[in-house]
Amino acid sequence: MVAALDVGGTTIKAALLDEQLQPRATLRAETARSADGTALAAQVVDIVAALAEQAGTGTPAAAGVVVPGIVDEETRVCHFSANLDWREVHFGELLEERLGLPVAFGHDVTAGGIAEFRVGAGQGATNAAFIPVGTGIAAALLLDGRIHRAHGQAGEVGHIDVGHPGKCGCGAIGCLEAISSAAAIARRYTERTGRAADGAREVVDLARHGDEVAVAVVQDALDGLGHGIRTLLTLLGPEVIILGGGLFTAADYVLEPVREWLASHLTFQRMPELRIAKLGDEAGRLGAGLLAMDRLAEL
Amino acid sequence: MVAALDVGGTTIKAALLDEQLQPRATLRAETARSADGTALAAQVVDIVAALAEQAGTGTPAAAGVVVPGIVDEETRVCHFSANLDWREVHFGELLEERLGLPVAFGHDVTAGGIAEFRVGAGQGATNAAFIPVGTGIAAALLLDGRIHRAHGQAGEVGHIDVGHPGKCGCGAIGCLEAISSAAAIARRYTERTGRAADGAREVVDLARHGDEVAVAVVQDALDGLGHGIRTLLTLLGPEVIILGGGLFTAADYVLEPVREWLASHLTFQRMPELRIAKLGDEAGRLGAGLLAMDRLAEL
Repeated sequence: MVAALDVGGTTIKAALLDEQLQPRATLRAETARSADGTALAAQVVDIVAALAEQAGTGTPAAAGVVVPGIVDEETRVCHFSANLDWREVHFGELLEERLGLPVAFGHDVTAGGIAEFRVGAGQGATNAAFIPVGTGIAAALLLDGRIHRAHGQAGEVGHIDVGHPGKCGCGAIGCLEAISSAAAIARRYTERTGRAADGAREVVDLARHGDEVAVAVVQDALDGLGHGIRTLLTLLGPEVIILGGGLFTAADYVLEPVREWLASHLTFQRMPELRIAKLGDEAGRLGAGLLAMDRLAEL
Repeated sequence: MVAALDVGGTTIKAALLDEQLQPRATLRAETARSADGTALAAQVVDIVAALAEQAGTGTPAAAGVVVPGIVDEETRVCHFSANLDWREVHFGELLEERLGLPVAFGHDVTAGGIAEFRVGAGQGATNAAFIPVGTGIAAALLLDGRIHRAHGQAGEVGHIDVGHPGKCGCGAIGCLEAISSAAAIARRYTERTGRAADGAREVVDLARHGDEVAVAVVQDALDGLGHGIRTLLTLLGPEVIILGGGLFTAADYVLEPVREWLASHLTFQRMPELRIAKLGDEAGRLGAGLLAMDRLAEL
């Protein structure tokens, strides 16, 4: 039994998972924040106790925690997290001390990818990318059967230049994230119409119903994704691309245009298999559980 | 002792290497070509015999052969090579039959990278890219300490879109190779001046002496390289980039502009260490030798 926690800037999704990754207890909580990570560490200790009590199983054997940002899974240090307002937080060590259990500490998108590759849409692939399109866009990379980490520096597919004139939050021009993220889709629709859009899904719904601005904004986003995926294919040659996030719950509407962009823009690159993520919101938490199990296996 | 052969479209560079990678015999020959690979296989048999005789050491323990194109080192199949006019040539198996020795068969740029990473400019790095800028541009990728191969589909950095309007030989618009390869530098200089240029080095020399067109063409090429390297950093996070090929023999003139482009265009990405390749033209042949030694170690 392991505790698995997917920590976001506002919410924690936690579960106690058995060896078959089945949740024996789950809970959600508002993220406790402090720049040194101690508030979160104290909260995780409480959450693990609450989960164990809820399940009636006693203390788990290990805990896995994943966060957004730049995380080195090996040293268990978070170098930077905008969402948590962290810099150089040695969270793995800190939590292990407080919790008295082996702790795995990782990156949320990478963990989501580990879950999709092992028990989700990516099963059987040896070269694949998992790209959840959310507020931002990042990727988890499976290369020759192994997760590529580069100490947390890899996979920033959202900041590939896909050749548009818009400025990204990172300061560069033309980033994928600035035209194709859920946040960018909503923002660009609002800029052009003056009407607020409640996320990318609403814009996709408007596009389905013939709203011309929505159609153009969604098309730009999907063309951008095609362009970003082409770059991934050119450099890394994955045979499978797994697309996820709210945008791709409307798979019937959004997947085909990405495939078409690729079909008309790939030259020598192999067309990958495009798959929709299977694990949805659960991917990060399941990945945190898998990381905890991996840590136990290493000890 | 192993035989190591770097096979190009026109020339073969061959050597007999001892365990310290020192050449005990070397020779060059014009590449024997046939679409099924049999002409090359027969030639390699002769070359290996000639090398053994020259060195007076008897038959080597294995042979390593590398070629340009898309090569799967695992199955030892060349899927495509424009330079050799090959499609789906099972050269590893074919040569092993003819030669009666264990054969390693690989990709020339990847092999060059293996040599640079193990015994050249990349020593000590665990995440690095080797980018020789020649007629074309490709990369060898060292990721978390391992060469990333993706069955020969990876590393085509020359076909990253770096945002210029020129058409590439591959059919796409904006490829790095179409503005930054040695061939592109010479071609673009000739297009603008009507004067033939004998390769990139001559254009760099003209730029050094103040030829304004040459300055602009070289600047475009180096900006393109900066842009391509930024994409590599964004996706893969290497800490070391090794630049090679004729262009970078003029390192004092061309390296600083690439660094400057990166310094002013990187946002969150880490600045990598830029190094000049150490092994020059020998990299491919040394890599072929290392592949042969690896194969022996596996048997």
